[in-house]
Amino acid sequence: MAEITRCVACCDVGGTKALLGLVDEEGHVLARDRYLLGPAREPQQMVDELVSHLRGLAVRAGLAWEAIVGVGCSAAVMADVEKGIIFSAPNMLGPHRNVPFTNLLQDAAGRPALIEMDAYAAALGEAWKGVGAGVDYFVYVIIGTGIGAGILMQGQVFRGWRGTAGEFGHTTIDPNGPRCNCGRYGCLEALAAGPAIALRAQGAILQGRKTALTALADVGDVTAEVVFEAARQGDPVAREVVQQTVEYLGIGLSNLIHLLNPRVIALGGGVVHGGSDLLLEPLRYEVARRCGSWVDVQGTHVVAAMLGEDASLLGIARLVWNQPTGRFQ
Amino acid sequence: MAEITRCVACCDVGGTKALLGLVDEEGHVLARDRYLLGPAREPQQMVDELVSHLRGLAVRAGLAWEAIVGVGCSAAVMADVEKGIIFSAPNMLGPHRNVPFTNLLQDAAGRPALIEMDAYAAALGEAWKGVGAGVDYFVYVIIGTGIGAGILMQGQVFRGWRGTAGEFGHTTIDPNGPRCNCGRYGCLEALAAGPAIALRAQGAILQGRKTALTALADVGDVTAEVVFEAARQGDPVAREVVQQTVEYLGIGLSNLIHLLNPRVIALGGGVVHGGSDLLLEPLRYEVARRCGSWVDVQGTHVVAAMLGEDASLLGIARLVWNQPTGRFQ
Repeated sequence: MAEITRCVACCDVGGTKALLGLVDEEGHVLARDRYLLGPAREPQQMVDELVSHLRGLAVRAGLAWEAIVGVGCSAAVMADVEKGIIFSAPNMLGPHRNVPFTNLLQDAAGRPALIEMDAYAAALGEAWKGVGAGVDYFVYVIIGTGIGAGILMQGQVFRGWRGTAGEFGHTTIDPNGPRCNCGRYGCLEALAAGPAIALRAQGAILQGRKTALTALADVGDVTAEVVFEAARQGDPVAREVVQQTVEYLGIGLSNLIHLLNPRVIALGGGVVHGGSDLLLEPLRYEVARRCGSWVDVQGTHVVAAMLGEDASLLGIARLVWNQPTGRFQ
Repeated sequence: MAEITRCVACCDVGGTKALLGLVDEEGHVLARDRYLLGPAREPQQMVDELVSHLRGLAVRAGLAWEAIVGVGCSAAVMADVEKGIIFSAPNMLGPHRNVPFTNLLQDAAGRPALIEMDAYAAALGEAWKGVGAGVDYFVYVIIGTGIGAGILMQGQVFRGWRGTAGEFGHTTIDPNGPRCNCGRYGCLEALAAGPAIALRAQGAILQGRKTALTALADVGDVTAEVVFEAARQGDPVAREVVQQTVEYLGIGLSNLIHLLNPRVIALGGGVVHGGSDLLLEPLRYEVARRCGSWVDVQGTHVVAAMLGEDASLLGIARLVWNQPTGRFQ
């Protein structure tokens, strides 16, 4: 009789889509899937849909549901992860608050379940199988539609009192900067996340500046991706927008380094994925310059994250595998 | 025969003076002393002087040196505290580098010894006997001649890779701000430490602004203390300088809260000690405003530290008492 491969079923739920993965105890992702979320955000329905997709994935991978020892979910949530209660998760659960998500997931899957903040999960994933492996002080920074961070000390998540540590995107970079979604001014997210990069480029077009951007997209369709493409072609306006982005990120990262002195900062997320060839080297230079005389002492390495979308899945898998055996066998 | 009170001998060495204390296992400071450091910064001589003062203190307290189970020292050092080597401590050891300080101290005192960064020691002290007691995520911020922080997670120091975490004073608050001693621009320390407060007030006087400051001190003698005194008298220029200080500290603290979500931030140091009546309430308001919609979630309490100069002594004492018994009995 062949040995049964035991797995955990993991998902990373974003604002529009969910990623799914079945992960074994060694951190191999045995099967992957994704699906677009419907418009409804009713918690029970979300959970049923999720579990139904996870069951389907197991079937396609040739695994009986009995082989699944636990289920985990990462998302942009404000939650008590101990109790498994999501206080608020506007992208995932719309207006629903104080949702006992872990209980719902556990009941629907018939397996022990847990939830985790997405940035923390990604940090744990990179620390398990990526650029954070063996690193005592490790920070994962995600730069996409928003900006967030997961902070690890000796492998343990630095959550903060109410689990909101790592709100890196809402640190102030320039008190006189543009207004952020959060209502304040000059937050890193309002200066260097994807939408902010697009907005600065669109502003330059609307000011009538001559740029190759207009040949690539209508002004309203200029995204960070388009800006990177134009910058690669040598367009001065796009290059300026990228350079400003590097400066803002440089201030933010140097603040983070001064406060936390991590050994490695891994950069992930859509903006990094789409523009690492333009961002990474200049950013390293900017960080070194801004850490001034400290840089030889602090010696933080700024690198690209390695695992892409798998980071959160692997982090969640690691958490499920690390649960006390009494609960998860 | 009376029971012998066992103690640890602690010191906190600054740029100009050393504080000494004998602390029992319950955290009572049984005796205190202080002395001015001489101009020489030769390590062996510094250590001999320190131990000689500690021995004198024990005698005056009626304690035999046999009652001293260990010795600890806190200072503004860049060090490997595990190995007890000070890489650099310009204020304490001048140009001397890579000093095996713990070994020197151990040999001179005939007792096991350790060193710790002063901000970390103060954080540990407040966490033992002050406003950080029982707090899972706790940050101690010292605002004096410089600005630094000690970060604790569940009682454990967040040191960073090379032990430089907590360089809060060198986070950038305003990229267009004044030059800092570190060579960069707009660091919190260059905007809100004691000398920066004095400098802004002196600048206002030199610009010819009418102010009560001139009646209190010659322009070169205006310190943060003098600014606070004038502000208490209602002087508009001094009040403006204080208000700017509050705004800069508010940005810095809100960045720290977004990154770390501590339950309590304790403010200590000379500037806080001298101006807490003017700074604390406006600062709480500013932090609440800057944490925007997050503040009800993050709920960080900003309070004045409780133990004054004893904080570092108690933190060091706690570290010595917590050493494995094999080493420290």
